[in-house]
Amino acid sequence: MFCVIGERINTTRKSVREAVVKRDVNFIQKDVKKQQAAGAHFIDVNAGARIGHEMEDMKWLIETIQPVIDVPLCLDSPDPSVLEMAYGMVNQPPMINSISLEKDRFDTILPFLKGKRCKIISLCMDDSGMPTGAQDIVDRARRIVYAFEDMGIKRDAIYVDPLVQPVSTDNAKGVMVLEAVEGIANELPGVHITGGLSNISYGLPKRPIINRIFLCLMMMAGMDSAILDPLDAATMAAIKTTEMLLGKDDYCTRYLQAIRAGEIIA
Amino acid sequence: MFCVIGERINTTRKSVREAVVKRDVNFIQKDVKKQQAAGAHFIDVNAGARIGHEMEDMKWLIETIQPVIDVPLCLDSPDPSVLEMAYGMVNQPPMINSISLEKDRFDTILPFLKGKRCKIISLCMDDSGMPTGAQDIVDRARRIVYAFEDMGIKRDAIYVDPLVQPVSTDNAKGVMVLEAVEGIANELPGVHITGGLSNISYGLPKRPIINRIFLCLMMMAGMDSAILDPLDAATMAAIKTTEMLLGKDDYCTRYLQAIRAGEIIA
Repeated sequence: MFCVIGERINTTRKSVREAVVKRDVNFIQKDVKKQQAAGAHFIDVNAGARIGHEMEDMKWLIETIQPVIDVPLCLDSPDPSVLEMAYGMVNQPPMINSISLEKDRFDTILPFLKGKRCKIISLCMDDSGMPTGAQDIVDRARRIVYAFEDMGIKRDAIYVDPLVQPVSTDNAKGVMVLEAVEGIANELPGVHITGGLSNISYGLPKRPIINRIFLCLMMMAGMDSAILDPLDAATMAAIKTTEMLLGKDDYCTRYLQAIRAGEIIA
Repeated sequence: MFCVIGERINTTRKSVREAVVKRDVNFIQKDVKKQQAAGAHFIDVNAGARIGHEMEDMKWLIETIQPVIDVPLCLDSPDPSVLEMAYGMVNQPPMINSISLEKDRFDTILPFLKGKRCKIISLCMDDSGMPTGAQDIVDRARRIVYAFEDMGIKRDAIYVDPLVQPVSTDNAKGVMVLEAVEGIANELPGVHITGGLSNISYGLPKRPIINRIFLCLMMMAGMDSAILDPLDAATMAAIKTTEMLLGKDDYCTRYLQAIRAGEIIA
């Protein structure tokens, strides 16, 4: 089943930052309960926006969120000491968001990962910068998978992010990442493919329709997870509909359940 | 560019049948002008519903429609004598909808096609019935293409319809036709792929959202034409958005034009 990572608890969002500053338990708990009810499989938690406060804000967020949800957390920080602290608090194996092939970032997170039970998102980014072609993305994904497998991390725990780039700057960028996802799915079977989609529409008007259709195309290419807002009902409906069309919903059961719950909006 | 065949002028639709019976010139002309303005590249004309009146109804429809539009017609009839009459009236090479591999139907239309300047839609249907797998569809498309090419018809004039079947009866039917379209696009480069999409959602609620997402997936697979209602604004917006995402809209020009025209609705 397509894995939705709910992106809303991020202190770069003004309303979340204010709730964190005020220690507004109710605001945060209400939000994450809604994300879970809408179908999030992981709740991303990013406390990075208040410089100098990440450790305490992350701790408060986990204390606040964890008691009211059943799904695991996605710990979103580049700081291994914050991740260590957070990992010690979670009551289910978390997802880690994220590592990359950039040497500094890779070497910084690597010691944290040793012996941990978690899933990990890894960006197809290296020290040469953003990938420049579909094969380049596939090659980076292979380096990520092989590096983690060498460390004993199972392929099923690895989520690669092919890095979606705007179609407004170069109209080949959509096809590039779609082909890359097909390549990763074919050449590295079993690895998960995730990421944010919204970069695709950067600089263009009516971004939600672009993002939503692109998500459907990425699912057909082989993407099986995304970091998005589960409270965007049209997007969640598009995911359920696409899964059905791709033969991943026996007897259309989940589509019809969603219909009965009033979740499929046209 | 994706080729839209506007399906509205069909006497199986009650409002159209009534307009035809009343010889309501204004109703028909208004409809086809709207279809053209919305982006139809062909206007399908089907006068088959009034048994015994097809010849006169088709003649009246062509007389009524042709003076007010600039795009060519898609002559939609199984009757070669109706097609002969209609072909004699059109002022631009038409499309013919449709032939199939069924021996009777093929042999009936074949003499009509000899020496005509037209495009032709051919269904992947033969005397054994509906296709049962992706490779079966590709094989039928190949038989169609080779048969027409042997008659001197150029591949660029051939539009194969892979025959969309409902996902509600078998959840593999969506993937089957998507794979078939990929196969046809790869193995028979240059042939066009068209058809109606709405069968995919037969028996399910909220059909428009299913049809629309399926169209986007079919376009990614290689479908480059469809028979649909061009006045369905959300579908036309999805086509323009998908073309942009598939790298077929340089500098996002057509998407941005559609935005300025208020045509992209989310």
